[in-house]
Amino acid sequence: MSGHPFDIRPGEATVAPPERFDAGLYFIGRIRTPWTRREDCPKNARESGAVCSIETDPRWAQALAGVETCTHLLVLYWMDKARRDLVRQVPRHLGEPRGTFALRSPARPNPIAASVVRLVRVSGCMLEVVGLDCLDGTPLLDLKPYFASTDAVPDAVVGHARRRG
Amino acid sequence: MSGHPFDIRPGEATVAPPERFDAGLYFIGRIRTPWTRREDCPKNARESGAVCSIETDPRWAQALAGVETCTHLLVLYWMDKARRDLVRQVPRHLGEPRGTFALRSPARPNPIAASVVRLVRVSGCMLEVVGLDCLDGTPLLDLKPYFASTDAVPDAVVGHARRRG
Repeated sequence: MSGHPFDIRPGEATVAPPERFDAGLYFIGRIRTPWTRREDCPKNARESGAVCSIETDPRWAQALAGVETCTHLLVLYWMDKARRDLVRQVPRHLGEPRGTFALRSPARPNPIAASVVRLVRVSGCMLEVVGLDCLDGTPLLDLKPYFASTDAVPDAVVGHARRRG
Repeated sequence: MSGHPFDIRPGEATVAPPERFDAGLYFIGRIRTPWTRREDCPKNARESGAVCSIETDPRWAQALAGVETCTHLLVLYWMDKARRDLVRQVPRHLGEPRGTFALRSPARPNPIAASVVRLVRVSGCMLEVVGLDCLDGTPLLDLKPYFASTDAVPDAVVGHARRRG
């Protein structure tokens, strides 16, 4: 694996991070995917129909009651391989700089990913889902029911991405 | 303010949390809303058309470049008033227990909220948005562009909520 994910490209900018953390996270499980190298991950979760597993820690088992009635979940996970000080980034597919908060890049002050997945099956503390694109072993932070009424905005537009075609 | 948010109701269950945190978060700004007491917050963000403000720390100013081209954003914030050890909860509007991961309750191992907002205006480090329902002063964790292609699932169903009517 190259050091690439931690290098800075021309046009990118960093800032000094705050001196201390303000809150702490528990890793509540792990995500199992077919991808062990960043370059193998699908560029976009909709590209892949791969069934991935979410293994929650048995400590939280009771918290899964009712999850099986959801067709879709919002999965929050921790992109622990990403640097946190990039404010301006040059994504390879764009070739020009964007602010970090205008991108879904893993590199961000708090590298929390939010992915919508289709739930295939719940079996004890293990969930099978479709729609993830992360590395095998990625730490899990949260599972939430996906409510179309508040979470689905089919006509939303990201202008800077659209302009690129 | 009553101690209610920290009390346990009949039918609810807790577990001992892990002994230490696995990762740390930076608060990158604050959310300004009209609501200073939990009981005043809208039950559901779509209930309210209130324009709220997101004030990002000037340290991250460059990270906002391009955000103004988005019609909608995914906002992650930290529900710092919530307890983290509840695995089974009895929401008032349901009256019967559900697992924490089947609910959008603030009480969860990692109390990270994910809300879709409509972007009204960007002015320096301040964003005006519609679609939040949190307390005034809530710490901000992340801003992401909302991509309809991956984030919108209009036909998603939360079975346990639907059965209640």
